[in-house]
Amino acid sequence: MATPTERDLAATIDHAILKPELTRADVDAELDIAAQWRVFSVCVRPSDIAYAVQRLAGTGVAVGTVIGFPHGTTSTAAKVAETRQAIADGAAEVDMVINIGALRSGFDDQVVADIAAVVAAADGHVTKVILETALLDDEQIARGSRLTEQGGAQFVKTSTGFAGGGATVADVELMRSQVGPDVQVKASGGVRSYADALAMLQAGATRLGTSGSAVILGEARRVDAGEGATGAVDASSY
Amino acid sequence: MATPTERDLAATIDHAILKPELTRADVDAELDIAAQWRVFSVCVRPSDIAYAVQRLAGTGVAVGTVIGFPHGTTSTAAKVAETRQAIADGAAEVDMVINIGALRSGFDDQVVADIAAVVAAADGHVTKVILETALLDDEQIARGSRLTEQGGAQFVKTSTGFAGGGATVADVELMRSQVGPDVQVKASGGVRSYADALAMLQAGATRLGTSGSAVILGEARRVDAGEGATGAVDASSY
Repeated sequence: MATPTERDLAATIDHAILKPELTRADVDAELDIAAQWRVFSVCVRPSDIAYAVQRLAGTGVAVGTVIGFPHGTTSTAAKVAETRQAIADGAAEVDMVINIGALRSGFDDQVVADIAAVVAAADGHVTKVILETALLDDEQIARGSRLTEQGGAQFVKTSTGFAGGGATVADVELMRSQVGPDVQVKASGGVRSYADALAMLQAGATRLGTSGSAVILGEARRVDAGEGATGAVDASSY
Repeated sequence: MATPTERDLAATIDHAILKPELTRADVDAELDIAAQWRVFSVCVRPSDIAYAVQRLAGTGVAVGTVIGFPHGTTSTAAKVAETRQAIADGAAEVDMVINIGALRSGFDDQVVADIAAVVAAADGHVTKVILETALLDDEQIARGSRLTEQGGAQFVKTSTGFAGGGATVADVELMRSQVGPDVQVKASGGVRSYADALAMLQAGATRLGTSGSAVILGEARRVDAGEGATGAVDASSY
């Protein structure tokens, strides 16, 4: 893999703005970072979608959101209603959490039906399925990836960023190996440095979820300028 | 306050069965604990409501659930749909999470409207509002308590159990001081011992949320038998 430029890397980033305690002022600051670094999209809390769409108008940055987040164990009816409202509010993409308990229990039909219902409600908008790999073993990660494809989603995604662990190279490689060429992998949770970002892309991810976009893209800019990366890590990012 | 008997204490407990990673077998074990100790209710994940209602039939233990859990920052439309499905599935009570970001931003009208919409969707079933006190300062806890009453909910509740901190005596007393006699206080998150339970009731709570019911009620049983409490703590409970 050739080293991606700042622009290449920015085009893979969903900038996460998801912590429940964030105020409007906090959200504004993060939306401005996303616009400044021209990331692919922001991933905001559902109740912020309409506001984010308005504030980012004209910047070229898309607005995505999360569904059933972060536990994934709500009813399918709730996920469907949440998705419909998200699309109505202007979300371009939705990142749903798989029903983690159902996956771990081997209720595969229920898992696929839950995914398929959200994909249908998303009405053609890109749907990603978060497995929450930190709570799964390898068999469950592999099966969850295959069920994601069966459910008709476009991406399988590692983590919410709220369950302790995050994306690992091994998990991304495993997920990539289980799905066909039409399904992409998003690495998220603990992607805090330029090195993390490159490692995830190398492992097969084509989209990154992180709140550390400024640090990661700042490093890419230095590399583009021939200055070399400093090894900076945004330790607070998720 | 007279020392509550085991039966008094059991009548205050919502036994929490909420971790996203729980399998069906894990849920079964927790439902059986709830039935064995005859707690007031279980508080289950929305996708487990119908199953829990069936399994607990005839035990006298009610089934409650959570709405917008644990972040609270989804759309009101999603919370309403989730509540309607929960009631249809047999939930007797719903514990919703307040929109934490909106509360912290001072968007009081939005917060009240969000609560009132869930109360309406609950259609006469008891609605509790979780503030997530660990993410709030005292002014926000006080205001959130008053907005809960304005929204028409029956309880204000401290914590989800998933944000690090949990119920404290000071927070329960503050919440109690801000609401009228028709609104009750539920202490939850980190209630792991008999001493914790008594302290929360002493501070003004009338309902407790805990996954440590067996340890807490086991101690109460010993006290009832004149044996005295051992000081046991269920360190893994939430």
